Amino acid sequence: MTERPLVHLVGAGPGDPELLTVKAWRLLERADVVVHDRLVGEGVLRLVPGSALRIDVGKRPGCHRFRQEEINELLARLAAPGRTVVRLKGGDPFVFGRGGEEALFLLERGIDVEVVPGVTAAFAAAASRRVPLTHRGVASSVRFLTGHGRDGWWLDVDWRSVADPATTLVLYMALQAIGAIAARLIEGGLDPATPVLAVENASLDEERSLRSTLGAIETEVRLAGFDTPVLFIVGTVVEVLPDRPKARAVARAMRGTEPLLHA
Amino acid sequence: MTERPLVHLVGAGPGDPELLTVKAWRLLERADVVVHDRLVGEGVLRLVPGSALRIDVGKRPGCHRFRQEEINELLARLAAPGRTVVRLKGGDPFVFGRGGEEALFLLERGIDVEVVPGVTAAFAAAASRRVPLTHRGVASSVRFLTGHGRDGWWLDVDWRSVADPATTLVLYMALQAIGAIAARLIEGGLDPATPVLAVENASLDEERSLRSTLGAIETEVRLAGFDTPVLFIVGTVVEVLPDRPKARAVARAMRGTEPLLHA
Repeated sequence: MTERPLVHLVGAGPGDPELLTVKAWRLLERADVVVHDRLVGEGVLRLVPGSALRIDVGKRPGCHRFRQEEINELLARLAAPGRTVVRLKGGDPFVFGRGGEEALFLLERGIDVEVVPGVTAAFAAAASRRVPLTHRGVASSVRFLTGHGRDGWWLDVDWRSVADPATTLVLYMALQAIGAIAARLIEGGLDPATPVLAVENASLDEERSLRSTLGAIETEVRLAGFDTPVLFIVGTVVEVLPDRPKARAVARAMRGTEPLLHA
Repeated sequence: MTERPLVHLVGAGPGDPELLTVKAWRLLERADVVVHDRLVGEGVLRLVPGSALRIDVGKRPGCHRFRQEEINELLARLAAPGRTVVRLKGGDPFVFGRGGEEALFLLERGIDVEVVPGVTAAFAAAASRRVPLTHRGVASSVRFLTGHGRDGWWLDVDWRSVADPATTLVLYMALQAIGAIAARLIEGGLDPATPVLAVENASLDEERSLRSTLGAIETEVRLAGFDTPVLFIVGTVVEVLPDRPKARAVARAMRGTEPLLHA
């Protein structure tokens, strides 16, 4: 039991409940209240006890259900001594999750915050499609950017410095902006033939992916009908290892011999 | 049972076994062989069954025990149909872990590879010390670099493009090089007063951290006697939230009421 009210700001990982941390799994199982985003997988939410209050503050594009200020207020009102309040965010709470804003709001009101890190979507996509984010002689650095933002936000980004062939680039929430971003990266000096991997629903059973190039990626994700969430990995690392259709089949067959968490 | 030999390339997370993924935890519990690095925590290794073969290929600075080529060969020789071989790497296998090299070597020899992502040390350090890696209006991007490499490697890095006040910089394995890196970031345009967080042994009970500035960080980690592994987070995000000595005490007290995994 806590003396001070406490909110657990928890990373839900990429979607597959097996990619939750053990700590997150245990917190969900004993949660009294879970406040979650749209990007949290159904399999993860199934771990929450039926007796717990579950609040979906998920924001769909063009259909905002809760403003950030409303989520902050909601968390502050839910926090109470002895109550296990879990704020569950897709991936890691401190990577494009606005977790810092929620933590700041709560701390300023005397509510304690415990942050539980999570596996970010980029790591899940890279593992699943076998793309090392760094690789000796190919990429010595990796950089995470978001494609989400107000109209024209990318005019403020120094694309010349982002366009570095020795740095792997990971783009979150960039499905709408991928054409504009690719054009700016090419203007900034990247070869239009630079490999790009797009992964939709990383780590879930319905995961889909395609390998393309910076010059062709916008057209190809449109043709394939990709829908959010999509993650892009840009760089030569995409071609270091062969993709794994067979391996995936093997992994699925192996899983079938054990009780599936999400089946 | 697998038809083809298979090696599981598994992220061990930052050290605390509660920050393992559920998938990694289960694989460790049924492993026949575990080949691990120095940075894998003792608490994590305690999950491996006593009947399993445990091979430490950990490389200590100045005292290389296994060369990368030897590790590759070892994994290829250990892989066999029906045998659960786990290659356990600190953090995530595809972020500065040389996982790509091991996967490539195995795949070229007809050995299948399954990659299990993990929580990287940066996420654990950020969660523990409450530093959001991205934060609206402060940092729209985060970049991971390594300070490890051959002498003079940093001459090849374009520090002017790395020195971006709107990008959070995370430095892995940079304890030796932090002075040289800080000097180059200041030359590249970053303010010497830019906040820096150093975290030693992120997520473990013996975790220590200090907040300093780019201009003072080298002296301060020396004075504090920091030893590897140390992770650095550079940027204004370090000052967005208050640090959490009290919160940490609370989290410890709460843990004490449950069976501790690593006690």
